[in-house]
Amino acid sequence: MTTYQHILVALDLSEHSLFVLKKAHELAQQNHAKLSAIHVIEPLVESSHLAFDGTISTDLLPVQDEIEASAKKKLSKLAASIDLAEENQLIQIGRPADTIHQLSKDLPCDLIVVGSHGRRGLSLLLGSTANAVLHGATCDVLAARVND
Amino acid sequence: MTTYQHILVALDLSEHSLFVLKKAHELAQQNHAKLSAIHVIEPLVESSHLAFDGTISTDLLPVQDEIEASAKKKLSKLAASIDLAEENQLIQIGRPADTIHQLSKDLPCDLIVVGSHGRRGLSLLLGSTANAVLHGATCDVLAARVND
Repeated sequence: MTTYQHILVALDLSEHSLFVLKKAHELAQQNHAKLSAIHVIEPLVESSHLAFDGTISTDLLPVQDEIEASAKKKLSKLAASIDLAEENQLIQIGRPADTIHQLSKDLPCDLIVVGSHGRRGLSLLLGSTANAVLHGATCDVLAARVND
Repeated sequence: MTTYQHILVALDLSEHSLFVLKKAHELAQQNHAKLSAIHVIEPLVESSHLAFDGTISTDLLPVQDEIEASAKKKLSKLAASIDLAEENQLIQIGRPADTIHQLSKDLPCDLIVVGSHGRRGLSLLLGSTANAVLHGATCDVLAARVND
């Protein structure tokens, strides 16, 4: 029996990402599904208005490139642990939930896997992302519980 | 490979419940997992203080019993579609998210399945429940996307 055909796992590249990726991989194997992994980088420079009115230096752009290169390296290392092909490792710049939703439609995917903390406090950020992904998703969302 | 051992599906007994139950059933079969279904009834009488200070009549109690009987009947009908044994059909009175969390710990379960709408508006209630269940869950949560 096959429930899902293409699973998209969203990783924040935190210490919990390996756990979340492995869970998504397990589900993909169980469903004989394709697996794609995405990490979304939030833009440092939100708009050209901010970038060019003098309050934020355009020197941020090389910093953004550096962040992207570092993310690519981290994602590649994680992907190696489950032998995920390079073409299924995606780095995109944008707002996390919106970017994940758009990609899940474009691929298209029928399941999005995100990590989630149960408690608030220090873990608010990760919890909010799971929440934000849940709202507006056009497919199923699995919030994989990571240890606080 | 087995990812989940005991799946708890929370049903609001709306028109979407059959779809959500069938998805949970499919996942349970795939994982060779036990399946329990719960419907939570929100209490009409929140506290004995409200019930007995004269502002709310204690006549509400028979109404609550009637709601419970009706819910039991509906849940039983849904359960019949997947041959779910009566002991795995649960009706509890309480706040939905808290009750689902507590039951998922008591059973214990390693996956909670809830229905979820992607859009807001008319579907706010169901979306909020998925949201509320996500926060504070001690296990994975799958939000199964139902059609708006």
